[in-house]
Amino acid sequence: MTRKIRYGGDYNPEQWPEEVWDEDHRLFTRARIDTLTVGVFSWSLTQPDEDSYDFTVLDRVLDRAAAEGRSVCLATGTAALPPWLARKYPDVNRTDFEGRRHRYGQRHNFCPSSPAYRRLATAMAARLAERYAAHPALLAWHINNEYGGCCYCDLCAEAFRDWLRDRHGTLDALNDAWCTAFWSHRYTDWAEIEPPSALTEHWRGPDHTAFQSTTLDWFRFTTDALLGCFLAEKEAIRRHDADTPVTTNLMGMFRPLDYHRWAPHLDFASWDSYPPLDAPPTWPALAHDLMRGLKDGAPFWLMEQTPSTTACRDVNPLRRPGELRLATFQAIAHGADATLYFQMRASRGACEKYHGAVIGHAGRDDTRVFTEVASLGRELSDLGPVTLGARTPARTALLFDWDSWWALEISDGPSRLVKYQETVHGYYRAAREAGADVDVVPQDADLTPYDVVLAPVLHMVRGHLATRLEAVARRGGTVLTTFLSGRVDAHDRAFPTDVPGPLAALMGVRVDEWDARPPEFVQPIPELSAEARLVFELVLPRGAETVATYGTDFYAGTPAVTRHEYGDGEAWYVATALDRHGVDRVVRRVLDRHGLLGPYAGHPAVETAHRVAPDGTRLLFLLNHAQEAAHLTAHATATDLLTGKRTQEGTALTLDPLGTAVLRLQ
Amino acid sequence: MTRKIRYGGDYNPEQWPEEVWDEDHRLFTRARIDTLTVGVFSWSLTQPDEDSYDFTVLDRVLDRAAAEGRSVCLATGTAALPPWLARKYPDVNRTDFEGRRHRYGQRHNFCPSSPAYRRLATAMAARLAERYAAHPALLAWHINNEYGGCCYCDLCAEAFRDWLRDRHGTLDALNDAWCTAFWSHRYTDWAEIEPPSALTEHWRGPDHTAFQSTTLDWFRFTTDALLGCFLAEKEAIRRHDADTPVTTNLMGMFRPLDYHRWAPHLDFASWDSYPPLDAPPTWPALAHDLMRGLKDGAPFWLMEQTPSTTACRDVNPLRRPGELRLATFQAIAHGADATLYFQMRASRGACEKYHGAVIGHAGRDDTRVFTEVASLGRELSDLGPVTLGARTPARTALLFDWDSWWALEISDGPSRLVKYQETVHGYYRAAREAGADVDVVPQDADLTPYDVVLAPVLHMVRGHLATRLEAVARRGGTVLTTFLSGRVDAHDRAFPTDVPGPLAALMGVRVDEWDARPPEFVQPIPELSAEARLVFELVLPRGAETVATYGTDFYAGTPAVTRHEYGDGEAWYVATALDRHGVDRVVRRVLDRHGLLGPYAGHPAVETAHRVAPDGTRLLFLLNHAQEAAHLTAHATATDLLTGKRTQEGTALTLDPLGTAVLRLQ
Amino acid sequence: MTRKIRYGGDYNPEQWPEEVWDEDHRLFTRARIDTLTVGVFSWSLTQPDEDSYDFTVLDRVLDRAAAEGRSVCLATGTAALPPWLARKYPDVNRTDFEGRRHRYGQRHNFCPSSPAYRRLATAMAARLAERYAAHPALLAWHINNEYGGCCYCDLCAEAFRDWLRDRHGTLDALNDAWCTAFWSHRYTDWAEIEPPSALTEHWRGPDHTAFQSTTLDWFRFTTDALLGCFLAEKEAIRRHDADTPVTTNLMGMFRPLDYHRWAPHLDFASWDSYPPLDAPPTWPALAHDLMRGLKDGAPFWLMEQTPSTTACRDVNPLRRPGELRLATFQAIAHGADATLYFQMRASRGACEKYHGAVIGHAGRDDTRVFTEVASLGRELSDLGPVTLGARTPARTALLFDWDSWWALEISDGPSRLVKYQETVHGYYRAAREAGADVDVVPQDADLTPYDVVLAPVLHMVRGHLATRLEAVARRGGTVLTTFLSGRVDAHDRAFPTDVPGPLAALMGVRVDEWDARPPEFVQPIPELSAEARLVFELVLPRGAETVATYGTDFYAGTPAVTRHEYGDGEAWYVATALDRHGVDRVVRRVLDRHGLLGPYAGHPAVETAHRVAPDGTRLLFLLNHAQEAAHLTAHATATDLLTGKRTQEGTALTLDPLGTAVLRLQ
Repeated sequence: MTRKIRYGGDYNPEQWPEEVWDEDHRLFTRARIDTLTVGVFSWSLTQPDEDSYDFTVLDRVLDRAAAEGRSVCLATGTAALPPWLARKYPDVNRTDFEGRRHRYGQRHNFCPSSPAYRRLATAMAARLAERYAAHPALLAWHINNEYGGCCYCDLCAEAFRDWLRDRHGTLDALNDAWCTAFWSHRYTDWAEIEPPSALTEHWRGPDHTAFQSTTLDWFRFTTDALLGCFLAEKEAIRRHDADTPVTTNLMGMFRPLDYHRWAPHLDFASWDSYPPLDAPPTWPALAHDLMRGLKDGAPFWLMEQTPSTTACRDVNPLRRPGELRLATFQAIAHGADATLYFQMRASRGACEKYHGAVIGHAGRDDTRVFTEVASLGRELSDLGPVTLGARTPARTALLFDWDSWWALEISDGPSRLVKYQETVHGYYRAAREAGADVDVVPQDADLTPYDVVLAPVLHMVRGHLATRLEAVARRGGTVLTTFLSGRVDAHDRAFPTDVPGPLAALMGVRVDEWDARPPEFVQPIPELSAEARLVFELVLPRGAETVATYGTDFYAGTPAVTRHEYGDGEAWYVATALDRHGVDRVVRRVLDRHGLLGPYAGHPAVETAHRVAPDGTRLLFLLNHAQEAAHLTAHATATDLLTGKRTQEGTALTLDPLGTAVLRLQ
Repeated sequence: MTRKIRYGGDYNPEQWPEEVWDEDHRLFTRARIDTLTVGVFSWSLTQPDEDSYDFTVLDRVLDRAAAEGRSVCLATGTAALPPWLARKYPDVNRTDFEGRRHRYGQRHNFCPSSPAYRRLATAMAARLAERYAAHPALLAWHINNEYGGCCYCDLCAEAFRDWLRDRHGTLDALNDAWCTAFWSHRYTDWAEIEPPSALTEHWRGPDHTAFQSTTLDWFRFTTDALLGCFLAEKEAIRRHDADTPVTTNLMGMFRPLDYHRWAPHLDFASWDSYPPLDAPPTWPALAHDLMRGLKDGAPFWLMEQTPSTTACRDVNPLRRPGELRLATFQAIAHGADATLYFQMRASRGACEKYHGAVIGHAGRDDTRVFTEVASLGRELSDLGPVTLGARTPARTALLFDWDSWWALEISDGPSRLVKYQETVHGYYRAAREAGADVDVVPQDADLTPYDVVLAPVLHMVRGHLATRLEAVARRGGTVLTTFLSGRVDAHDRAFPTDVPGPLAALMGVRVDEWDARPPEFVQPIPELSAEARLVFELVLPRGAETVATYGTDFYAGTPAVTRHEYGDGEAWYVATALDRHGVDRVVRRVLDRHGLLGPYAGHPAVETAHRVAPDGTRLLFLLNHAQEAAHLTAHATATDLLTGKRTQEGTALTLDPLGTAVLRLQ
Repeated sequence: MTRKIRYGGDYNPEQWPEEVWDEDHRLFTRARIDTLTVGVFSWSLTQPDEDSYDFTVLDRVLDRAAAEGRSVCLATGTAALPPWLARKYPDVNRTDFEGRRHRYGQRHNFCPSSPAYRRLATAMAARLAERYAAHPALLAWHINNEYGGCCYCDLCAEAFRDWLRDRHGTLDALNDAWCTAFWSHRYTDWAEIEPPSALTEHWRGPDHTAFQSTTLDWFRFTTDALLGCFLAEKEAIRRHDADTPVTTNLMGMFRPLDYHRWAPHLDFASWDSYPPLDAPPTWPALAHDLMRGLKDGAPFWLMEQTPSTTACRDVNPLRRPGELRLATFQAIAHGADATLYFQMRASRGACEKYHGAVIGHAGRDDTRVFTEVASLGRELSDLGPVTLGARTPARTALLFDWDSWWALEISDGPSRLVKYQETVHGYYRAAREAGADVDVVPQDADLTPYDVVLAPVLHMVRGHLATRLEAVARRGGTVLTTFLSGRVDAHDRAFPTDVPGPLAALMGVRVDEWDARPPEFVQPIPELSAEARLVFELVLPRGAETVATYGTDFYAGTPAVTRHEYGDGEAWYVATALDRHGVDRVVRRVLDRHGLLGPYAGHPAVETAHRVAPDGTRLLFLLNHAQEAAHLTAHATATDLLTGKRTQEGTALTLDPLGTAVLRLQ
């Protein structure tokens, strides 16, 4: 196949009579489909009982793909159990947060500690690898599907205790880490430790726990337990196939799993994008950048998106004309080398029958959706290989930290209303709308490439992070953090020092107390013409200068935003949840100091994204998220690779409503 | 007893000392009470342990009724278990949706598959029939009480599997019907199938299921399982009493049970009417018509209504003066031959002690409620037999289909906000307020009597329905259906053809895609001066003409309502959830074509209902639901049977606030 | 120690390294801390396994306290189980309302019927008493902590049956009391009775029950079961320590436990005050008065309050400058002889790490909070013993009745929206803001000291209460009651007489029916320029005169408020939920008749509270709850004990914003 952006999607032909397959493939050709994800839900087909395997259908699917020049991303299918397995080995079914052992149903419901599950899932992976490693259609391995959830059975409890023994070494260390002197929790035997659930440490649900430390370790254990399942399957594959890249489809900003712990084990990152209703374009953009950040900036796959609608939501709006194309180019702009759909043909029954598909129930090629998909297929073919392997030349980093996310959202006090994603997205959005390329990186990433490091709600600070942030400022960079940062150590223990703990020296502030208020309370921030809500830390400057102040309440006139000169650089502390305008003001001032405001920063609906191809070609994606045309003045001379049109610096550059340009800069 | 509308209610004298009974009967006479429902909660009284029966109290109640010329509707009382039964045979207690086996408490909680329950309930029915079959007071049998709910125990799971075997025959057939290729669900043994519950296929509750087909079959099984209990008791009665009619009190529009499957087994229909707060008058009217439709238009009993207030709701408003009388005549207008209360005397304790009663705790005969009840008793006595056995001469049919209700409301996508009852009621209300008599019939009813067939949200189409609807149009009738109709077959599988599936030819439209939006989004429909919400199907006319269009969004100008000439008739397709005004406009246009607009269609608060008595007498009920008088011009010469007053055609006819007239037309 | 108001709080030094203790004690001295609550969460420390006890740390804490002249309130610590106990004896863990046996986690979670728990908790109490009875630091015993909750295990079910046997004697009596003829519930064996739970009589949660009588007895049993735990520990202590007073920290208006049943067994009352967000100052005031009423007006301890913020709420606002001081003096004004904090030093980890503390994580003495605490410590030292042992000379009583609270809020009908606390607080607030001192007393209290008895929503009337209320009126007093009073007897059975049952003669009214409406419905009450909501009883005067009427609906013009002359006094009946203004108008008219309007009744933000010291000194507390200064004219000549300043009658008396004066009246 010619090198180009991969295009296709999940294809489950086993749900249809074979006469339909011919029609499918005719339409695939029309839409320039070159890649099919196969086998995600085929376990009950390929293994009708413990001792029988039947790959007849898969053989046909892969052979046909190969014959027509298409590639297959082959799933091990271990995320959806066959009924016989759940009945024969009840321990493969999960025990839920409420302590209830489930029985057969749904999917994504296997106990990660079940020996039967582990044995049979890896056997399946091994069989598939043995059979298809050398198949000409094989492009990549897709292990399991959308890993998530956890299990509270006795086997998982035992596995949790083993994991804790590994992590803490001794009970004394665990008692110290978990502060078990609180509420008389000192453990004297590992066996006394229970998974934190509705029957033990939790009330009101998974975010309300008596012991944050226990729950945090449970989240980490869960991440590792599911990763263990992935690794076991990968190892089984590698026994038969040394080279074909292996991935699993992640879910972007997915709280339950710390993907940074998974990243080293993926040969490439891939993810499924289903943005929340009414999410602004920067929401999926943040997820794209997070996924790109998993493999240090290497391109990823968009493994799933819907061509039209979802089905699982209370309300499932239709993607409007042009929105699919725009979202697809946005993925590419942020680093996707493949953009695939869920799903190629709509299922006839069950809970996803109304989920959008490239081919609907009637099998037509003259629907609006098919027409848009086919048209986009042509554009991607025409675009060719130019974007493949390109990198994002970001000078701004955003720290994204699952531990801080967890610690913040399971904390009792000061406010359950502060949400990690919303706050982090607020700073990301401001930087992106100001035209900055942003790398979204883990807290232990190398920070030397960056001029600006944004670290909002960095609740947990561990390792040498504070020192590394100080180094950024010392050499002239800017570090920004916010309220509720620098609060706890790796075990969720408050630092026995002034807030913001290890960040205090860099920030040049001291915080003794903080107010929290209901969402209807509005705190004016006069210097920024902005408003703040939810949490208001009372800041005592200790070297920092006051940039903006609170406008009301007994702390009126005290600092809400500070700036601290540190080395050759500076450190910003934002002590409250500023509104959009306030965050914009602060972030633009930070970026401006480093010359990082983009040329179209005055056009908030126009997203820009730079990419540098392996051969040094500099690309600039322009994405117009408005329903109206955008009239720009070209900041550089460039050629739009989608139209072939060349625009001179300083002349008019117009983007259609929802339009895209992929400019090759001179 | 003189033939007349039965009047009375539930009477549980076992809750009071016998000296109170004398007072009760004195008041019964004052209020012209002629019918008492007895024994609904007496099991623990009549059978104090497995081997003892004691009918002393029941004997006294029935003997006294007979002595005073009253009739008894005798309940088998098997809906409320005695404590000893629940303790001795724990399997009579249900296992709930969450998998929890219950213990003794409440009522309506027996496992329908429990052998102990079945044995002892039928034994009780047999004993009662043996003892009272020939009792002079016996008027009818009332089996159990308000059947509902279901059980997820192992016995029910086994019964479900048996039911599935009967329905599907083979596992291959079941796998095909349920689309088990989806999510790897192919069953290889009947024993692998689990009832769909919170522990298996469901999340977020009973309406969210991974397999709609499984859940649908579970609903059907539940209907049949409870029906099996009813039939077992009926059979036990019939062994001793060949003639006395048997019923059970249904609950109108009650989603859990498909009453159309029960209808053939009831000797007459009866139901309990407790409309939702602020329900418009057409809400109980629809339920009355649905109940009348169960037995092909034969009269039914209003088995329960409250004379004043309910108790079980968060807020329990009082029926205002005149409302009880109006609701009672409405029931008669729609086909009730009996109107009874729950309850004759208020219980002293437990959860219904504040439920309204004809006689309150103080036993007074000078309360407003008692006075209204007694006055109404007098009117019914005066009215005599004229309405008994009358039929409704409707030329409009509304299809009401439990399968569509279920399939629509458990569907993932396009919108969880579309509710079957609300949508169906919208069309019913429009037709009724326009003055049309409406029969509410099952989808397999004989449609030949009707000029107009309304089939809103007919999500599931099965059997020869499409052909039968086409026949209606071919012979000159009008068929109307709406968005989300014609979507799935009997197993909830999408039709592999254009939407609306088998209805497409009749409707002359094709639908490829549909938008769903939050409730705050309003779509104008300019041609109807109306608004639409929730779901917007994009219609491609294929023979139909456009009647009204969408006013905004990318599909502005495309059809929202179409009309298709078909044979001598026509077919209307309403592609979105129109507001009240829009539905009115469409329905009135449809009715007008057939001359079905009523003479008082301009008075929306005045309900009209025709009845034709067995002797051919034509009655017209006029019900004024407004708090103001209605000033009409008589459309015909007629005599009001309530007042004896005769009105000439063309002269003034005034209805009091909340007033009723029962006109005998000339 | 000099006699003065006790000042200090919970101190858990076992959570910190010993070097921190020195710093703690230095700060204690600065803040004039004289009392420490110790050992609340130390069980896992003091008893590392069943056979070992280790009091080393406690010894050090108490010895140091003694050495520095501080006193210790020593907790038995039995509210937070050690892990080994939960594992070794699983029956110590509770079974919840849903029937789920819990495992180790949280606190306040012991089964009160567990023999292992009882044995080991009393053993701990005995050991502590034996060891510390004679310790010079020991001031009081603090048993367990914030008793609450209940358990549904088989042991508790058996204990419930035993309790019922004691209470009812025979099954016939129980069947009669519980009205088991309803819904076929007649019990024939004690073993058939189940605790009322989600698996038996309840739906939608603990307030929705099929049998109110059963649930009421369960609440009473729960009160007694936990009281049994308290008494067992107290007895264990008394075996070694005959004199030191014993208490447990109650929680004010805490629905689950009827504290009036506990009161006789407490040597003094103590409680933890965490008012709801935005609660008006009369809310904690009512709780203070309720706690003072437990021991017939004797002073109590404020065992816990936060110096700054809570942590357990969704939103945890900061106490603003001056609020802590005001709340503390309010507690003293209502009878507190000790005001303590939770907590002295913030815990480092787990769910209370953000709960406010006198000393924060950084251990500073220059925070705002520490500064306010220390300043208040100085004021309390300066105030000395003058308030100790003082009594409130109230002539107004408010009846507070847990049985009515329970019965009202578990009732089906007429309205789930009527809340006992809100309604009672409405009348309390009106009386307090009018300047009346109020005793909050149980329904069986001696009423002879009072001119006015307020008895709002007295749903249950039992014993000779009606007669005793009649006596109040007969001798010239005023009795007020409201809608939904006088409805049920001790077993929640409706009285077989006119509403309001035993209160009807006193009130001179008869109520046959009542309307309930959603909260958005507003009923005007013209005579009071007020509005009413939720419930509207229709009142027929039977001797009473009409004070105010309903303004709308079919009962417009009928009485909403009546006054009945009775003996030398009068009785008021308020038939609906009046708004604040309406309650004010009624209550002020009642108080005025007895000359009970206070001198500052025109200043609603200024709270007044009288106290009479053992030596006869008359004190008047003035508490300004406004953020603005209050400008009063002194009604008497007095000296402010906080400032030493003397004010002449008739001259200006100014209170600072949030300011307090403690006036010694001449």
